[in-house]
Parts: sequence; structure tokens; C-alpha cells
Amino acid sequence: MVWKRKDLVGLKGLSREEIGLILETAASFKEVLFREVKKVPTLRGWTIANLFFEPSTRTRVSFELAGKRLSADMVNVSASSSSVVKGETLLDTAKNLRALVCDIIVLRHSLAGACHLLASRLPDVGVINAGDGMNEHPTQALLDMFTIRERLGTLEGIKVLIVGDILHSRVARSNIWGLTKMGADVSVCGPVSLLPRGIEKVVKVYTDLDEAMKGKDVLMFLRIQRERQEAGLFPSLREYHRLYGLTEERLKRLATKVILMHPGPVNRGVEMVPAGVDGENSVILEQVTNGVAVRMAVLYLVSTVLRR
Amino acid sequence: MVWKRKDLVGLKGLSREEIGLILETAASFKEVLFREVKKVPTLRGWTIANLFFEPSTRTRVSFELAGKRLSADMVNVSASSSSVVKGETLLDTAKNLRALVCDIIVLRHSLAGACHLLASRLPDVGVINAGDGMNEHPTQALLDMFTIRERLGTLEGIKVLIVGDILHSRVARSNIWGLTKMGADVSVCGPVSLLPRGIEKVVKVYTDLDEAMKGKDVLMFLRIQRERQEAGLFPSLREYHRLYGLTEERLKRLATKVILMHPGPVNRGVEMVPAGVDGENSVILEQVTNGVAVRMAVLYLVSTVLRR
Amino acid sequence: MVWKRKDLVGLKGLSREEIGLILETAASFKEVLFREVKKVPTLRGWTIANLFFEPSTRTRVSFELAGKRLSADMVNVSASSSSVVKGETLLDTAKNLRALVCDIIVLRHSLAGACHLLASRLPDVGVINAGDGMNEHPTQALLDMFTIRERLGTLEGIKVLIVGDILHSRVARSNIWGLTKMGADVSVCGPVSLLPRGIEKVVKVYTDLDEAMKGKDVLMFLRIQRERQEAGLFPSLREYHRLYGLTEERLKRLATKVILMHPGPVNRGVEMVPAGVDGENSVILEQVTNGVAVRMAVLYLVSTVLRR
Repeated sequence: MVWKRKDLVGLKGLSREEIGLILETAASFKEVLFREVKKVPTLRGWTIANLFFEPSTRTRVSFELAGKRLSADMVNVSASSSSVVKGETLLDTAKNLRALVCDIIVLRHSLAGACHLLASRLPDVGVINAGDGMNEHPTQALLDMFTIRERLGTLEGIKVLIVGDILHSRVARSNIWGLTKMGADVSVCGPVSLLPRGIEKVVKVYTDLDEAMKGKDVLMFLRIQRERQEAGLFPSLREYHRLYGLTEERLKRLATKVILMHPGPVNRGVEMVPAGVDGENSVILEQVTNGVAVRMAVLYLVSTVLRR
Repeated sequence: MVWKRKDLVGLKGLSREEIGLILETAASFKEVLFREVKKVPTLRGWTIANLFFEPSTRTRVSFELAGKRLSADMVNVSASSSSVVKGETLLDTAKNLRALVCDIIVLRHSLAGACHLLASRLPDVGVINAGDGMNEHPTQALLDMFTIRERLGTLEGIKVLIVGDILHSRVARSNIWGLTKMGADVSVCGPVSLLPRGIEKVVKVYTDLDEAMKGKDVLMFLRIQRERQEAGLFPSLREYHRLYGLTEERLKRLATKVILMHPGPVNRGVEMVPAGVDGENSVILEQVTNGVAVRMAVLYLVSTVLRR
Repeated sequence: MVWKRKDLVGLKGLSREEIGLILETAASFKEVLFREVKKVPTLRGWTIANLFFEPSTRTRVSFELAGKRLSADMVNVSASSSSVVKGETLLDTAKNLRALVCDIIVLRHSLAGACHLLASRLPDVGVINAGDGMNEHPTQALLDMFTIRERLGTLEGIKVLIVGDILHSRVARSNIWGLTKMGADVSVCGPVSLLPRGIEKVVKVYTDLDEAMKGKDVLMFLRIQRERQEAGLFPSLREYHRLYGLTEERLKRLATKVILMHPGPVNRGVEMVPAGVDGENSVILEQVTNGVAVRMAVLYLVSTVLRR
């Protein structure tokens, strides 16, 4: 199949074939990362802007390295910079980047739909969603899927449990759309206060982690934000850990082949005990590496459409 | 003619021929921006420091991309960084960049004359003014002139009206020097409290915008700073818009061939109504694109002197 | 001899031969800095992360330019960025950079030992100390040694006096280790409150600067931090200058061949009068230039071990 989109707004709208193509492409780029010269000339002369309205070291650096390894020129524009402070709208900022002859904009924004807005209003610029509010974070889910497939050989029929704050998580949403499309069997587990209403119509829902873990191939723990606790959505970090965290005890019960995932950064001792984060079941750092390969793939595929 | 300056401090001191040469050079670099590979090896191995003591996304990114497209190595140094916090003087910071073997320093500083100081004290480093206090912002005026000439074929005899806070605007000052030298007919319009004393000896002055607009080819609206209102220099944004803004009503009266300019970012609904910003008379985004070409030209011309 | 270390944690653990090799290598890289194209392809395809938990314009830019001139891809990660704000540990941040396939991490951190921790826990990543708490700042001392050797032909038997806040200075510590190993005769001078206990067992100690300066070849003034005054460690900047600064009077007494050093940024009029900073004895800006060459050498040497 041929890639036909100039943007990656989310996984909700992608077909199984499109997701498959991204994952295949990422596999070939991953090989580049372990060459002596980790660089290909694919996007030489292209300009990619990292437009981040929310701070994020790991996603920003991951895209920056993905672009540099494709030989693109990267430019970082962060929300603390002046135009945003001066009250310029998102669309004006993006139109200015387009006028500066940026080919692709990687956007992180606190509003759901920000990425869709830019993608639809800038017909000749590629727009990649690096997280928009509580909506989607498609490259995170793609790297998760890549990691699962690399470890377990397939996504078809794989039993994935996503644990934690499903309600506020764009990572969960993108994974639910993507994994389901690829034939995985997705379920979620978390406190009722952190589950979106109606989620049970989309995936199987658990509130008891011990029951939920049974028979699962993949446990994906989401990062818990302290501000949710302040908002009264869960009682204490200790209590959260006991009920929804990977405790020492739960870790011991884990089958060898089960893989542990986390989008990072981990609150050690809250979502997972350190022995889980650093143990043999953990693929957390593989996720990070695969993120670069997946982002190289997305930037490349989008460029093939823009180039035409 | 041959370019002979290692610096671009302002347009006040440039000859008509020098300005013409920058604009010609920019025209050839603009073509590079729309190639598939937007890059030339002209400044490979050169190092350019963006030394910004005031925040500015658009000017910083424009210079950064100009340099990268010439294949220079760019390094960003901002005022929030430590040495400045540690109380190092401007000249010491610049001498350190020179000692790090930076070839060109692009300087934005809140003090008028800062750029002249560096240029005169660093005999073997190129210094480009990216805005110094209320003095000059020469590359902005050059991109404005480039845009007018590209649209209207010439600058000679073109009637340009600059509207707004002339008093505090380095953009206005650089444009007045540059446009006048190139044979344009420049006038200004704004509230008396925002006009510099004695300006009527240099250009024609209006305080009534409707009268001022008559017969003009170019309307250039300047950004209004909210802090001027707090200082009592104009009564309210609404009142400012009514008296000195491009209202819907004024937009409707506009001849097709009149071009609307703004250095950005626009306060939509204050200096200009959105229909003006985004309409057919507007060349605001062309200004942004031309800014990259003009900055490539300036960096290149300066390099030819330093190389000798 | 062959370089065998993947890290540069400090000078305390290096042999005289290792320090000599770095200085020799730096001499050959210094030549690159004055070519028309200041770039070599040595580290093309390598990725180097500047991981700075304390602000530092000059050290960050120096490493950034060193890396770029070796053709490496550089990525800047600063402490104000999000993951650190989110409470991620240093080791987790570094493991993530490793997972992003960064080859070398340049680390500045406020805790002594931070660099040693990373170096020992990341067996396949190069770790370069860019300053760790009050422990070491080895590349600063190496550039100091390079500068002395370049000026005076040797380090053997050279009489070096380090003046100021020895107690809190990682620059002083690294220089004491390094210079002593290279056969220089090191002594220190400062107020008793700013001398480490037991320092007299390692180097000769003076509290009277006029006496201390006699017969010395090199005077290295350390930057004084204003917060030390607030902590009551010295009475006033004026008094500090009178007792431990290079005054006009002391400057006049200086022999032509004596060299004046300072790691920068100088508090003009405190550690040194401006006539000293900018005068003929001063090598302060040469130190800055040599810093780039020394850092190129260190990055290169470390890469030869990682490459194997």
C-alpha cells in the first residue's frame, strides 16, 4: 500500500493497513540507529519545527533526534518563547512557521483538537501530533505497538491491560484505537473516578488489578499525575500503589513472558516498584528506542506525500 | 558594486547601492527556499551565534533557518542563560563568543546602540542587528522593502504609510531610513503621544488615518504594545482600533492594488481586523518568507568581507 | 599510549600520560578551529547530549560547538525541562538518553559524584563531567593546563598560584590534581574562611596575596560568588578586592612574562581590575578558545573507546 496522508493527527482515523505500514517502516529505520553512522540523507534540506506548547523533554528530544538522523534541519519553538507570550494564536504561529518554509510541524498542545485544526488549515504542511490535550498521542501508541510486536511477534490476539488514569490519558486513548484495530484484546483497569464514562462499551473494564492481570500478555502502567490526587480523584499515592500499582508481590506473580510497559517518566514506587521498572519483564527503555524509529518512519511517510 | 561591511548595524548608514545589493542578493536566495533541497553549502564550517537579550520567536527562528540553509552551524544564546544572569557585560559575552570562534553574532538587545558597540569593538567578527532598543531593526525593514519591491516592481515613488506607535518602533525608524533612501515617499500616522518629536522634519505626518490612507500604495501597521496603554499613551485598545486600526470599514474602501503589511505578531482586531490580516491585500506572510531570504543575503554578504 | 577510558569523570584518577595525550590531541584539534571550514567529519552520525542541571552558557556552548565541529549531532537538555520537573531521577534521565541512542552524555550537576554515578551505571555510554558540585570540572582544568603549556612551553616546574574561593571551587580542585600531576608547583591563596581544611597537606597555602604572588609564573583568579558574602564568608566585595583581587597596584608590579587566568565570567573590579582582564598578561580569552579544542579532544578520545 502507499501512504497518502500529509499528517498524523491520531490513530482513531487510521486503517489497519496504515498502522501496519508505519510499523514496517519503523522496523527498517530502527536498523539505522545501530549503525556506526546513525544517519540517512532522506530528509536533507527539509525543515521540521518542534512546536511545543507543553514541556516534554523526552518527546521533544525523540522527535529532534528522529529528524536529525534523517538529516532534516530541526528548529525548536517552545511555548515560553515570546510570540506565544505576546498572545499570538496557535494558527498564526503555525502559519508563520509555514511562511518560514518549515515543511513539517510537530505539535504538542494542551487542547484536544489543536493538531486537527492545524492539519486542516495548512494544506501544504505536514502536521504530526505529539500529544493534544486528553485526545491522542499517536506516536506514543505506535511505539508501544511496535515494542509489543517486536517482543511477542504479533499484535493479533495479544491481551493488553492498560492500568491507571484512563480518563485523562491521551496515551491510553491512542493505544485503545490502535491496538484494537491491530486485533489486540485491550482492557483497562483503574479507579472508577479515573475511568471515562462509557469506556465499557469500547473495552473490557476492571477495577480490581489482581483479577485484571490474570492471563494478560502486556501490562501497560500509565503515569499518575499528582494533581489528580489534589483534585480528590484518588486518596493517596500509597493507596494508589497498593490498589493499582505493580507491587513487589504482584511482580513476583508475573509470568516470565509478560511484558511491562510505561510511557515514562515512571514515578518509582507509585505506578511500579523499582524492581519492576528495571527487571527482566520491563521493556520501558526499548519503548524509548523504538520511539525514535517510529518517529523517523512517520516523518518519512508524511514527507513522501508532501514531496509529490 | 562590492559589499564592504563586516556588520549590519542599521539602514541609516547604508547607501542606496548597498541596500539595492542586499535586495538583489536576497532575490537569488529566495529561489533556494523553494527548491526540493532548501540548502546551499555557502557557509559550511562557519559558526553563527544568535545572541538574544530580548525574547523573539520569529526573528530568532528566521535567522536560525537562514543560517542553517546556508549550512552554517548555529548556536542560540539567550538572555535567561546563566552568564548574563551572573552579571557579565554584553561586551564580555560577545568577546567570549568570538573566543569560541563564532564568526558572526546576530544581536538583539534592549539598548539602542548595543549593536554598534559590538561591531566597533570586535574587528574580526560580523555583527548583525536583530533589533536594538528603539533604534533600528534593519533586517525587518529590508524584508519589508523586498516585499514591496517584489509586489509593486519598484520602491521609487511608492507611497508608504506607517501607522501606529512610531515613537517606540525600531521597525518604523529602519523603514524610514531605508525606504526614503530607495526613493519611496514615506509618511506616518499615529496618535500625537506616539509620534517622535521633530518627525515632521523627516516625513509627512498625519494624525487622521482616513485622510492619511488616501492615495497610498502601502499601509504598514505597527504592533501596539499593551504597556503603552498602561503608560497612558492611548486610551483603550477599542479606541485605538477605531482611530488607528484597519477597521472593516476602512478595509472595504481599500483599492485592490494597495498592500497591507505588519511586522507581526498581529493583535487581531486591534491593529487590523482579521479580514485584513488574512485578506487579499495582506502580504504579512510573504514578509515572513522574505525575511529568511533577506537574512541569508545579509549573512552571506557579511561573510564575504570576513573571509578576505 | 592508547586512550582507554569511555568517560572523563575527573583529573584525580588520570595518569600524567593520559593528561598529556589529551593535551596533545587538543593541539591538533586547535588547528581545525582556524581553518576556513572549521569542521571535521570525525563524529558524523554520533549523538551527544548536553545534560545540564545547572545553567552555564559558556560551558554548554563550548561543548555544543566542540561537538558540531566534529560533525556530531548535538542535543541540549536542560534542568528546567519537564522530566526533571516531573521528578525523574538523574539516572532515569540518563538511561532515557541512552535509550534514545545518545553515544555520549556531557553532564553538569550540582551534586558531587553525579558524573561518577552515571559513568559507572551506563557501561556503553561515554560520560563527560562538565562540573559536578564542588568536586571536579576536568575540562576547565585541562584547558587551563593547555593554555599554560602553550604560553610557557611546559607545565613542569611552572609556579601556579590559584587565588580566591578554593573551598567551593571545582575548578581549583581539578587544577590542583591535574597541574600537580604534570609537575607544576601549585599553591593557593584566599581568606581562611574559603580554604578547605587540610589543603596545606596538598599544596602550599598563602593568606597574603602580595607575598603569594612573588616569583609565580601563573596567577589564576577564581570567580567569587556573591552568595558566599551573604553567608558571611568574606566581609565585602571592596574588601575582597583589596585583599585577594588583582588591584591596579598589583597589576603594575607584574612581570611581563606572568600570565593572568580566570575561568570566567569575571566580576570586573572584584577578582581583577579591567586593565588586568584586558591587558597583555591576560590569557582569559585564549582559555575560552582552547576550551573548544580540549573538549573536541576529550569527545574524540572517548569515542575511540566506545567505537571498539
